[in-house]
Amino acid sequence: MVYVLGIDGGGTKTVCLLMDESGNVLSRGNGGASNYQTIGIDAAQIAIKTAIDKAISSFLDDKNYNKISIQGLGIGLAGVGREEDFNVIQNLLEQVIKTSKASINWELEPNSTVIKSDSVIALVGGLGHSVGIVVIAGTGSQIFGQNSQGQTKRVGGWGYLLGDEGSGYFIAISGLKAALKSHDGRLGSTELIPAFKQHLNLDNIESLIEVVYRRGWTVPQIASLAKIVDKVARNGDEIANKIINTAIEELVFATKIVIESLFEPNETVEIVTIGGVFQGINNFHSKYIQSLKAVVPNANVILPRYEPAYGAGILALNGLGYFPKNL
Amino acid sequence: MVYVLGIDGGGTKTVCLLMDESGNVLSRGNGGASNYQTIGIDAAQIAIKTAIDKAISSFLDDKNYNKISIQGLGIGLAGVGREEDFNVIQNLLEQVIKTSKASINWELEPNSTVIKSDSVIALVGGLGHSVGIVVIAGTGSQIFGQNSQGQTKRVGGWGYLLGDEGSGYFIAISGLKAALKSHDGRLGSTELIPAFKQHLNLDNIESLIEVVYRRGWTVPQIASLAKIVDKVARNGDEIANKIINTAIEELVFATKIVIESLFEPNETVEIVTIGGVFQGINNFHSKYIQSLKAVVPNANVILPRYEPAYGAGILALNGLGYFPKNL
Repeated sequence: MVYVLGIDGGGTKTVCLLMDESGNVLSRGNGGASNYQTIGIDAAQIAIKTAIDKAISSFLDDKNYNKISIQGLGIGLAGVGREEDFNVIQNLLEQVIKTSKASINWELEPNSTVIKSDSVIALVGGLGHSVGIVVIAGTGSQIFGQNSQGQTKRVGGWGYLLGDEGSGYFIAISGLKAALKSHDGRLGSTELIPAFKQHLNLDNIESLIEVVYRRGWTVPQIASLAKIVDKVARNGDEIANKIINTAIEELVFATKIVIESLFEPNETVEIVTIGGVFQGINNFHSKYIQSLKAVVPNANVILPRYEPAYGAGILALNGLGYFPKNL
Repeated sequence: MVYVLGIDGGGTKTVCLLMDESGNVLSRGNGGASNYQTIGIDAAQIAIKTAIDKAISSFLDDKNYNKISIQGLGIGLAGVGREEDFNVIQNLLEQVIKTSKASINWELEPNSTVIKSDSVIALVGGLGHSVGIVVIAGTGSQIFGQNSQGQTKRVGGWGYLLGDEGSGYFIAISGLKAALKSHDGRLGSTELIPAFKQHLNLDNIESLIEVVYRRGWTVPQIASLAKIVDKVARNGDEIANKIINTAIEELVFATKIVIESLFEPNETVEIVTIGGVFQGINNFHSKYIQSLKAVVPNANVILPRYEPAYGAGILALNGLGYFPKNL
């Protein structure tokens, strides 16, 4: 029996899957956030260790085993891509291994220790293979693709200040800006004003300053207001609908660029969509497909086949020569 | 002799002017930043006290006096406008007075203690009176006006996340976003990429993420990159010029709204421009005037007659019935 771990280290939680050589998921463990660039190395290390320990304990308890050998480990984390990041995670994993439970017998090899960016594991997990495109629109946004020659292309993913067009943050902040512009008289009337006031319990819309700056709201907290823009848009508000449509157009435009830079004009491309914006905003997924098909008719948009942690796991299995044989 | 203090509490420094009843500036003192909402009440209190002490010491030393009576105090601070803020500053001033030098004999009255927002003192200082409009474009932006009936109107000033269109931050972040969009293939070629790389000493433009997020750059630090956008625009780069022109159009549009909401269609309105963007960006001031005159022919754009701290001082003098008699 071969056992590997697939780990998805995110900004809100860390997921660890224990998988066998056929790609079966045997158990699962969760930890806290592990975006080390924001929360620090030590906190990330604890979150990853927690997720691993929980996945292992759950499996051992279930099977009544007291020891397990782990031959592979795949992990995906936001921001990993540069040499420095790679070394940071390598060191972090060594600490995790050193301090892990005695019940784990580590048998990792260089080939079976796979450190990737969050977009790579999302692509591989989402498609179940590695050729195609992943369109991520959650708090942030990013479009990432890989072709059969192994060439990759990324568009977006520059974070809330520098980009992330089409993301939850983009929709939320566009809504807040529109409400304030309308209040100023720079934009027509919109139901966004009463909706934000009600949701945030504000006496007046000027108090948005209080919420956003003085209460020190985090980026995910601001992004969560995308649901208010969506609610107002559903009720027919023109300004809110324009914001949602702009978000869709931004994602379609970015997807088109990735398709054109990696694939032949008539090649069929599998595109997997991931993130809360696709699920949470009314008709976002179907409108995205419709709009993308209008510019790239051979785009085949699918829902995720597996989760990102699964993608990390199969990358580790692949390093050991197991299922699936060719990523 | 009547003496008053005029204080301008800003995000980078605090200026205190000692003035007499005719509006003459007798001495000046500087302190650190006093935007209490960002740096905290204690630090703001120290900055204000330092600026006052320096202005007073300078005057007393110069005249070889050992005591001075202060009858009025005007202060302008960012964010002051709501009742809570007003009370916070009132308490802060009481602490400053309580701990100030023995050489100051405080004779303040309620009428002569004037607490205003930064935009009010900028308006009164810039115009030398209180009817007209101030257009502020520095790190942030704000357009504020007052008519002869005392009605006021503000547009913008919502801070870097929620607005500040036309500001230094707006120009800088638009430039950074454009460079990354160009890198992604979402925008044409622009000299902004080599210019930012050179100025920030980056191996590649992706490292902007490093600069903006991981080094934790402040908003004024990001805004300072507006000069790079300006440099590239001067060399004829189309994308950089479009950003500068958009900033101008945003300020013109906001000014037009303030004019229309406070003044009669044919009334001549004095508009004073303040802030580093007007001074630092090539032809910004003249292009702003040209563009504004095209939509509001009777706009009379002037450079500041006095500084904001002077405006705070004459508001205090006015409270005592001195020069100028009617603000």
